[in-house]
Amino acid sequence: MSARYAVLTGGVGGAKLVDGLYRQLPENSLTAIVNTGDDFRHFGLPISPDIDTLLYTLSGKSNSELGWGREGETWNFMAALKSLGGEDWFNLGDGDLALHVLRAAAFAAGEPLSVIIARFASAWNLQLSILPMSDNPVATWVDTDGGLLPFQSYFVEHQCSPKVKAVHFEGAAEAVPASGVVEAIMESEAVFIAPSNPWLSVDPLLSIDEIRTALQETPAPVVAVSPLIQGKAVKGPTAKLMGELGLETSNQSIASHYGTWLDAMVVHGKDTAPANLPVSRTDTLMTSSKDRERVAEAALQLAKEIAA
Amino acid sequence: MSARYAVLTGGVGGAKLVDGLYRQLPENSLTAIVNTGDDFRHFGLPISPDIDTLLYTLSGKSNSELGWGREGETWNFMAALKSLGGEDWFNLGDGDLALHVLRAAAFAAGEPLSVIIARFASAWNLQLSILPMSDNPVATWVDTDGGLLPFQSYFVEHQCSPKVKAVHFEGAAEAVPASGVVEAIMESEAVFIAPSNPWLSVDPLLSIDEIRTALQETPAPVVAVSPLIQGKAVKGPTAKLMGELGLETSNQSIASHYGTWLDAMVVHGKDTAPANLPVSRTDTLMTSSKDRERVAEAALQLAKEIAA
Repeated sequence: MSARYAVLTGGVGGAKLVDGLYRQLPENSLTAIVNTGDDFRHFGLPISPDIDTLLYTLSGKSNSELGWGREGETWNFMAALKSLGGEDWFNLGDGDLALHVLRAAAFAAGEPLSVIIARFASAWNLQLSILPMSDNPVATWVDTDGGLLPFQSYFVEHQCSPKVKAVHFEGAAEAVPASGVVEAIMESEAVFIAPSNPWLSVDPLLSIDEIRTALQETPAPVVAVSPLIQGKAVKGPTAKLMGELGLETSNQSIASHYGTWLDAMVVHGKDTAPANLPVSRTDTLMTSSKDRERVAEAALQLAKEIAA
Repeated sequence: MSARYAVLTGGVGGAKLVDGLYRQLPENSLTAIVNTGDDFRHFGLPISPDIDTLLYTLSGKSNSELGWGREGETWNFMAALKSLGGEDWFNLGDGDLALHVLRAAAFAAGEPLSVIIARFASAWNLQLSILPMSDNPVATWVDTDGGLLPFQSYFVEHQCSPKVKAVHFEGAAEAVPASGVVEAIMESEAVFIAPSNPWLSVDPLLSIDEIRTALQETPAPVVAVSPLIQGKAVKGPTAKLMGELGLETSNQSIASHYGTWLDAMVVHGKDTAPANLPVSRTDTLMTSSKDRERVAEAALQLAKEIAA
């Protein structure tokens, strides 16, 4: 069997690294294990923001202007919804709705999320394995100075403005990894942690005991790509949240947070490296496809070096 | 209290008469009692075709070109659905989805259809009462030479091509009229039967005992507008279906089918009138708003005359 690779990922930045790895690696050698802590129901429709972002990114459908959703999206559903007095704090695009409506029907028929996502990925000819971290519900709650908020309420409705005191993962203790998740971590040539928000997008994955244990026990090198660029996040609340948690917004803080299972880190340009951790340096800002391939290549190369 | 009027209605042709009555009558004097036998779930979303057609027609949103759905509709949901391998025999427009998604959420919250529809009508500033015939499920099944088919399968998927042997209304025996339906029939100045398909769109209403009894017992004149124009239906399978049921496609057949509770009929031009029934004649083809008002006015006038 040819070499396999695994990547743990969350939102938009994570999807870009997965896209770079997908472009660099042979077909069907990559497994993306995706955060589902942001998943929620809206009007009864099950939304999986991080999985859907990944599906759109890898199939070339993502909206580069908005940074989320589908390219060429239309908004007639939202307009009609508003005219009927429906809640409009969360935008659902017309084309985007297809994923949610089909997912709702498949859930109602008793299918687990992993099976549904595999079918979506196959319909769009994606030659990799996309796995939800778990088929069990795990919900990210953000404890803020404005109260305890479900993730989407914090992230979308309140635009990350409340101060974060802690983050909780409801259901994590009972959740088991989706079929194939532990195997992908244990049997890969290298395991990557995408440049997603460590506290909001990667921690949900780490909140599942068997995933954290697999990261500790895998013989493969575990390489993170830092989400920080000169102490700032490209997008989203990573730096703000680190400050609110009393942490220095540095690669050191992130390496310390991940702990001993982390073997190496790709850091941006001349950013300070974490102590006692092999690093490789590249421009980690991923705008073009070329950027994504460059960062993926740096991560692959670093994994190869420390495995040698 | 000012005079009230009621109209029993089904699909597109029915909605046009209701629109004419709505334009002719004072605000808040009309109650439209609508067929829900066509209602079904698609991808788990509850669709109420006849109610939705009425909502779109009365609020000026209906698609005059298609003859169903919303004007200016877009189809990105269906395109994405197809790309994901979803069933595509029933078209759901992007804007149209708002009604179904909000209805699904309201059903899940335990609201009855009548309450949901009243809220939709109010959101669109409609100054009439739109009532589903019942808050209980009644499903129209069409027994054909191609087997027993759910209504939408016969109507949309098979384009009315199978030969009809009989029509059944599942759940009718247990269904009770929605709150206000019987009162509207009993306490109105006049009750109208819209030019909808008598067997497919009006019979579901008549299949509910209390509605049929109210039509028999109401002191108000009951006036039907014939759906036939020179022995043909404007749209839909009325004439074809009458032939398959061994009936002459005539106003007489329709009057006989409705029975003794029918007091009068508006017929088209010089079409043959049913025996022993007062009729008034007008051009019943409703293309423009003016046409709708003319036919409504003829029906109102006929009711007035026979009540005198």
